[in-house]
Amino acid sequence: MELIPIKSALISISDKTGIIELAKILKDIGCQIISTGGTGKKITEAGIDITEISAITGNPEAFGGRMKTISFNIESALLFDREKDKEEAQSLGIAPIDLVVCNLYPFQKVLEQGADFETLIENIDIGGPTMIRAAAKNFKYVTVVTNPSDYALLIEELQTHNGAISYETRKRLMTKAFNHTADYDALIASTMDKENSENSYRLQFEKGYDLRYGENSHQSAQFYKQKGVKNSLFDLEILHGKALSFNNILDINGALETIKNSPKEVHACSVIKHSNPCGFCEGPQQLDVLKRAWSGDPISAFGSIIAFNQELELATVEFFQLNNKDRSQRKFVEVVIAPDFSEEALAYLQFHKNLRILKFDASQLNHAKDIRYLNGSLLVQDTDDVLYEKLDIVTRQSIDLEQDKKLIEFGLRAIQNIKSNSIAIVRDDDGYQQLLGMGAGQPNRLVATQLAIEKATNNLKSGHQLSPSTEALEEFTKNNIVKSYLISDAFFPFADNVELAAKHGIRKIIQPGGSIRDKEVIDACNELGVTMIFTGTRHFKH
Amino acid sequence: MELIPIKSALISISDKTGIIELAKILKDIGCQIISTGGTGKKITEAGIDITEISAITGNPEAFGGRMKTISFNIESALLFDREKDKEEAQSLGIAPIDLVVCNLYPFQKVLEQGADFETLIENIDIGGPTMIRAAAKNFKYVTVVTNPSDYALLIEELQTHNGAISYETRKRLMTKAFNHTADYDALIASTMDKENSENSYRLQFEKGYDLRYGENSHQSAQFYKQKGVKNSLFDLEILHGKALSFNNILDINGALETIKNSPKEVHACSVIKHSNPCGFCEGPQQLDVLKRAWSGDPISAFGSIIAFNQELELATVEFFQLNNKDRSQRKFVEVVIAPDFSEEALAYLQFHKNLRILKFDASQLNHAKDIRYLNGSLLVQDTDDVLYEKLDIVTRQSIDLEQDKKLIEFGLRAIQNIKSNSIAIVRDDDGYQQLLGMGAGQPNRLVATQLAIEKATNNLKSGHQLSPSTEALEEFTKNNIVKSYLISDAFFPFADNVELAAKHGIRKIIQPGGSIRDKEVIDACNELGVTMIFTGTRHFKH
Repeated sequence: MELIPIKSALISISDKTGIIELAKILKDIGCQIISTGGTGKKITEAGIDITEISAITGNPEAFGGRMKTISFNIESALLFDREKDKEEAQSLGIAPIDLVVCNLYPFQKVLEQGADFETLIENIDIGGPTMIRAAAKNFKYVTVVTNPSDYALLIEELQTHNGAISYETRKRLMTKAFNHTADYDALIASTMDKENSENSYRLQFEKGYDLRYGENSHQSAQFYKQKGVKNSLFDLEILHGKALSFNNILDINGALETIKNSPKEVHACSVIKHSNPCGFCEGPQQLDVLKRAWSGDPISAFGSIIAFNQELELATVEFFQLNNKDRSQRKFVEVVIAPDFSEEALAYLQFHKNLRILKFDASQLNHAKDIRYLNGSLLVQDTDDVLYEKLDIVTRQSIDLEQDKKLIEFGLRAIQNIKSNSIAIVRDDDGYQQLLGMGAGQPNRLVATQLAIEKATNNLKSGHQLSPSTEALEEFTKNNIVKSYLISDAFFPFADNVELAAKHGIRKIIQPGGSIRDKEVIDACNELGVTMIFTGTRHFKH
Repeated sequence: MELIPIKSALISISDKTGIIELAKILKDIGCQIISTGGTGKKITEAGIDITEISAITGNPEAFGGRMKTISFNIESALLFDREKDKEEAQSLGIAPIDLVVCNLYPFQKVLEQGADFETLIENIDIGGPTMIRAAAKNFKYVTVVTNPSDYALLIEELQTHNGAISYETRKRLMTKAFNHTADYDALIASTMDKENSENSYRLQFEKGYDLRYGENSHQSAQFYKQKGVKNSLFDLEILHGKALSFNNILDINGALETIKNSPKEVHACSVIKHSNPCGFCEGPQQLDVLKRAWSGDPISAFGSIIAFNQELELATVEFFQLNNKDRSQRKFVEVVIAPDFSEEALAYLQFHKNLRILKFDASQLNHAKDIRYLNGSLLVQDTDDVLYEKLDIVTRQSIDLEQDKKLIEFGLRAIQNIKSNSIAIVRDDDGYQQLLGMGAGQPNRLVATQLAIEKATNNLKSGHQLSPSTEALEEFTKNNIVKSYLISDAFFPFADNVELAAKHGIRKIIQPGGSIRDKEVIDACNELGVTMIFTGTRHFKH
């Protein structure tokens, strides 16, 4: 415990939130309050006596306020060892200060307000960090508070311990203090670097905790929240189930990314396996959206991670048949994520003990930067938030762009989230936009096309009630392929992809364009009766 | 310019490197040197007069050295505005200090030496950061140097400008000063967090520059070096060619990762397309290694990124036929990386104006952490640096592990670097270990197996001189598949992968094991005459 009574407090703050309440408590316990200009005035106005800091420093406030607190007397009062240095302090006339309440000149605020360089410089606090760091170094005896949000804790402890603060609290506040000054100087350093055409980048993370392991069991791993960031992926709320694994988190991110830009007025559902969406659908009814997302890859969907963009309803989740007595009918998934859950849906999902149920609204994922750490270096880029620059029909064959726009945009959202090289095949099925098949992560684009076509064809054949090998099934499959769009994340370097697609019945292709052989590719389309749309926007993703 | 003559300097340093030389120059220009204890002693011993700091502060050094510099007089001398505050300073008896030379108590050093908590606390510098920050804030008039490596610049400028320092230099040094204090407190904050069971993580990057664009042209991007890190990927030396693109850097990292653990005594070569190795080979002769790496996917190899683990020779690079008059014979790659280049090899490669030629030794990539930034959160894990825990033959059929060990380890290095789900097929070809085919990034493992088998079979058929459709070619292909290993990054959930592989002639399979259906899988192997090895080590990679 090692309680230290607070007999003398130094208060010098920029953000004056909650200070009067704290000062009153300090007064009640008979603590001397030493204070600076504006802070002192505010406290005095509340009827609480203060000691002017100049009475302690022995110096005037000088140089337009640049010198207020820094002095042999103040920093000595904070830094001397209450045991070892006791006599020396007495002989030098130094009385201990037990508590520092300080927050710094609002550098961040004036920076965000677009202040000029001189104002920025003037808002670099020198005395504040010195006090805070001196008090923190001597936390064995001194309490330091740098954030108004900690006043409540301080007050509670003062009241519990009869005007004293425990060692544990002093230590915890010391840690916060050094984080405060580190963050403060990090922002100043980055800002000054920019002023000097030096490009630096600092990232701060907190609240880290150990995961069971990393991508594999021989790798240890931690998960952190970025400091000061709203709507961090870290904030996802775990309503039920086992702790998240490293790979869960990777896939959850992919699942949310896939649906984050889906129109708010429709339901959207993504099914993720190894970071890639193997199922994705948008449409009017939630259950039907789930069914169609699932059937994008009904084999891989087992053990997948599934995200929704709207409150999850019982009728939807019953699709998983979690309580079917025939266990083979149960559809096991690892994680279900939605912005909310109806009471009944949540109760139903909780039937499965190990299922992770997460609350997070994908549309909140509005982070501007995509960052990759590579062996002691960092790549930073804007997130890929442009869907297309244009929709230019470049072939003789044409289509009604307005009529197909919903499907085209859906398809581009799909391709945006599949690892390169990627090909997606999407269709409109009764007003539902569905990912029918995809080829991901291939060195060779032709293989991605082959994969997407095979998957789409198989899905159509197996997803239908028609008996296999009937003409009706062939006809059904053909009709669906004909109305589908094949979408490529990057341009076709040769006509071979078009030829392969056309051979399997594809008649609508979307790609960014921009190859030196575009003409060859367009000629092939014209010859094969394929409509091709150029978007001008590539969607590489690695 | 706005030159400020250095008439008074305050020197207080922990690292005393190069200080005498600097002090001599200061003496020569007639500068007053104010100094503290140990620093002052060292300078005096070199025959240079100093002013004891206590003569300026008016206070004794106190509390075991905790109070030395902090005082109204010193910080005023650093902070006052030389124009606006001139009269006030005079009336207070404050003379300006024009230069601060200061580096801080060696917190990092004692931390790395494993110091106890008390020693760590004692090594938190309070006076140093105050001086440095005060001088930096007032850089309009004051010069601050925090690193001995900047003394040379300082001396040169003092000599050029007759004992004065320019505004540009003061501004540049100010930026360095705030970076110094930010880094210092960042380390203290992280260390104290750990002491307090708070888990925080701070990353600092510098030397950032704009790339032409990010993964796609609508995304702006930057590339940074991690501070204080050796052998950063950022340090790669560009010997020739266009600037690197975002995607180049991603692929270069993949190329180097793939060969970084290859045995030093053999040649290794990786061929990367969209982050995945589509070709990889190890063996005794460099040219033959390149040929076999290239033929792992001779279509995708065009436009790829290729890395070598040893000095690149002319005989090897002539394989690219960059100066072949028949342009169709030229093998275009985007980037060639090697730890060094023979003069002739470099000259030959430079024939291609746009080819990026990079110098980097892959074996230097020994970074311990793999870090993923995900929408305001961070996943940190140990790098995957375990190849296998065991090599257990779990089937009736067996093989000579010692004889095949080189190939097995090569295959595990390959699978370690292919995106999940992944399957690799590797063979030994005349003492060369070669990636014969791979399936990457598939939601469904069976599809990855299918892809790897197709690629391996096609490569064998097309890479051979035998005429197609002859029995000899079929025989050749079959023999090579039989001696190859099929390697899976994770366990087989069902026996279907084994059945598919066996159907295509595979007889040796390596996988981590650990499925609840391992027995089923092993039974299938026994039935089909397949040898299976369990490694106990999964290699998921996303």
